[in-house]
Amino acid sequence: MENTPQPSGATFRLSEWCANVPAQWSKAELGSASIAFIDTIAVMLAGSSQPAQQDFSEAVLALDGGNGKATVAGRSLAASVPWAAMINGCAAHQLDFDDVLDPSMSHPSAVLVPAILALAQSRANSGKDCLDAYIVGLEVLARLGEAMNLAHYSNGWHATSTLGAMAAAAACSRLLRLDVRRTQMAISLASSMAGGSKCQFGTFAKPMHAGMAAKNGIISAHLSSMGTDAIEEPLEGPWGYIALTCGSEAPGFARVLQKLGKQSAMEEHGVSIKLYPCCNSTHRPIDALLAVLAQHAFAIEDIARIEVHISEIAARNLRYSRPETPAQARFSLEYCLAIALRQRNGPGPADFTPHAVLDTEVQSLLPLMDIRTDPELAMPGSAGEAPHRIHLTVHLKDGRKIDQRMEHPLGHPKNPVGQDTLRRKFDACVKDVLGEDKADSLWRQLSALEQQQDINTLMALL
Amino acid sequence: MENTPQPSGATFRLSEWCANVPAQWSKAELGSASIAFIDTIAVMLAGSSQPAQQDFSEAVLALDGGNGKATVAGRSLAASVPWAAMINGCAAHQLDFDDVLDPSMSHPSAVLVPAILALAQSRANSGKDCLDAYIVGLEVLARLGEAMNLAHYSNGWHATSTLGAMAAAAACSRLLRLDVRRTQMAISLASSMAGGSKCQFGTFAKPMHAGMAAKNGIISAHLSSMGTDAIEEPLEGPWGYIALTCGSEAPGFARVLQKLGKQSAMEEHGVSIKLYPCCNSTHRPIDALLAVLAQHAFAIEDIARIEVHISEIAARNLRYSRPETPAQARFSLEYCLAIALRQRNGPGPADFTPHAVLDTEVQSLLPLMDIRTDPELAMPGSAGEAPHRIHLTVHLKDGRKIDQRMEHPLGHPKNPVGQDTLRRKFDACVKDVLGEDKADSLWRQLSALEQQQDINTLMALL
Repeated sequence: MENTPQPSGATFRLSEWCANVPAQWSKAELGSASIAFIDTIAVMLAGSSQPAQQDFSEAVLALDGGNGKATVAGRSLAASVPWAAMINGCAAHQLDFDDVLDPSMSHPSAVLVPAILALAQSRANSGKDCLDAYIVGLEVLARLGEAMNLAHYSNGWHATSTLGAMAAAAACSRLLRLDVRRTQMAISLASSMAGGSKCQFGTFAKPMHAGMAAKNGIISAHLSSMGTDAIEEPLEGPWGYIALTCGSEAPGFARVLQKLGKQSAMEEHGVSIKLYPCCNSTHRPIDALLAVLAQHAFAIEDIARIEVHISEIAARNLRYSRPETPAQARFSLEYCLAIALRQRNGPGPADFTPHAVLDTEVQSLLPLMDIRTDPELAMPGSAGEAPHRIHLTVHLKDGRKIDQRMEHPLGHPKNPVGQDTLRRKFDACVKDVLGEDKADSLWRQLSALEQQQDINTLMALL
Repeated sequence: MENTPQPSGATFRLSEWCANVPAQWSKAELGSASIAFIDTIAVMLAGSSQPAQQDFSEAVLALDGGNGKATVAGRSLAASVPWAAMINGCAAHQLDFDDVLDPSMSHPSAVLVPAILALAQSRANSGKDCLDAYIVGLEVLARLGEAMNLAHYSNGWHATSTLGAMAAAAACSRLLRLDVRRTQMAISLASSMAGGSKCQFGTFAKPMHAGMAAKNGIISAHLSSMGTDAIEEPLEGPWGYIALTCGSEAPGFARVLQKLGKQSAMEEHGVSIKLYPCCNSTHRPIDALLAVLAQHAFAIEDIARIEVHISEIAARNLRYSRPETPAQARFSLEYCLAIALRQRNGPGPADFTPHAVLDTEVQSLLPLMDIRTDPELAMPGSAGEAPHRIHLTVHLKDGRKIDQRMEHPLGHPKNPVGQDTLRRKFDACVKDVLGEDKADSLWRQLSALEQQQDINTLMALL
């Protein structure tokens, strides 16, 4: 059972890369990372105005001793670094409007961005430092995901929370300029703090998980930087994180680690920007239905049923066929399709209020939806290889059937959004919270994130 | 997959008991709880003077915004509530000298006592409130353990950290006088924060896990008290904590919950006080060897080998046959037996210094130990039913064999320590840290814990 340090163990190899990779990223990598900051700060501000988020924010601030200097977004308040990251991470994931990284089956930026920003504020880091830490954290998150998924996620672990904590620890280690050993210890400490089940989907605990991971990443990197030790290889071997959470199904690190130092995860996989504030598993069906509606003329009354074939994994996420709360509605494919059907547009934040969810007209459309799982969409293997396509058929009462498949919804790295769409989402999220002038300044500063000397200047706008 | 609230679900039933059980405990229950506070504060103070603990304490304090009023034991410092609990929990588990609860296969008091004390300070609770919260927390910890073990622990989860977080949430909910629903939410939030692998045994992360669980219990109860929601039943059902961490091997709650409201876990199981600062799995073999040494006259040179049969679970904990650090030595049965053999006494704190561990005479005794696993000692079932006996045989060079079995080492609830032994341990732990006068006052105040009006008076002594 002796867990001897392996010079070629996964945690060592990841840490070595994190500590030593030169901060020389391509224009494309830096551009994608900038978009992640813009989009995450936008949804964080929108999330910050939700009543439950404001209560949560008060509750977390009451735990804080005070005197902190890290910004609590949308509140004109400051907290100490871990608590600010916890509040902001929860806010960023509040609407389920934040971005997605396929192989980790997780929301990368709701964890990485708040952790990096809060820590960077305390050290007056530059925008460039933040982008660099983000690209490093995303790499670790993607590689952990490739090594553990689909098993890890399918078993019920909420990867945003679990893998997110370790990725945030890596990003924070990079920001703190920790050496290989201290980065390794930070990831190991984060593995001890990495919990959270997908059974929390549809409750407030789900966004809280993102904040928790951000906080735990900061704590781990900080404790390691001050000398706290842990086991060298927490991921592999007996009782390692893979054994504990994936069983024998995980692909493991052998192939994955060979990628380090070659094409970055940011280039290889990229990050999906979400255009609808609801579970990512709803996005392909929504876009498929919108494509049908754009190409065919029929009235809602003409529809007999809408048959959707999705993967087993997606079906298990979309647990609420008759949602009663906004949080449940975000995980209801029936609800999201009903909204798309009625509005001929994807759902927006206004569709996830207590009032909207209980609207009788929308509720009357729910039985139209006939959701089925397709075993072919649940192939084993790493998530990067999993077929994410879905198959939707609108059955009309006159006997016509309209088929639509969808693999890459708008916002996916293979179907990216343009600058205009990004700006529209940003404005819709930010203007109500900050006002038009401040929103404009923030957009301008974020668009030039690479040139920011001290991240505190930008954070003062939040 | 819809996780409908079950009025008879385990989390609801546990929460109902926590919120509603009258605070009317027997003299025996209160007495045992008092001993847990005395013993835990003693080992916490001893642990606080370890150099690595002091570094950890500085690191955690640097995360804190300041202004906190919860005592950091042994440091004449205060921190905010969650951070004080984290530091003190880690200190209490630092020497692995703190008590043990069999069915949960965990260290109850290193988690519960620091969480309760820090929270109680912030609310000026009485000693009676603290004892009540402890008995409630211990009940939850025992019942979680009975429902999940041996599977949970055998799979590699560090129950002190995982089950401990939920038990601490229950204890803190009790202290905050939360109702059934808010207690249920607190336990659910804690389930999301409950991580930590036994692969960290032999590193600093192990004691940190106790502090982490104390902190997470406080955070969960606090967030719940301010309205944060989570799923009603996080333990059972798909993706529930049992499914995630035990697989199909766990006994489940059916039989366990019938105990609520009858004999308390404190009465049914009791808590083992440790007399040696090393893994609980070493205690039976140490006592067996001491019994042989007390009854038979032979010299170390006469010994051919010492054969010990232990359970598979114990063997996997005792991973370090040739320890190089104090943390590893605490998980080395070879080392602990070598110390007992040489000293004709159980190991004490002085045997776990970097110098002591590398002592050539002790190291030369390690090869005498012949550790084997006995499959009969690894029967499935709940931990409360598991046979914990061990079998030790001293083989002498002249061919003689001396057999000794041991089921209940000194300090086990079925072989309890007297007041004198407890006081000797207390003095040995506390006097060097606080000085003789303060140690005496502390002993007196702790001995009358039930009469303390405001726990802050007592805490001021730490």
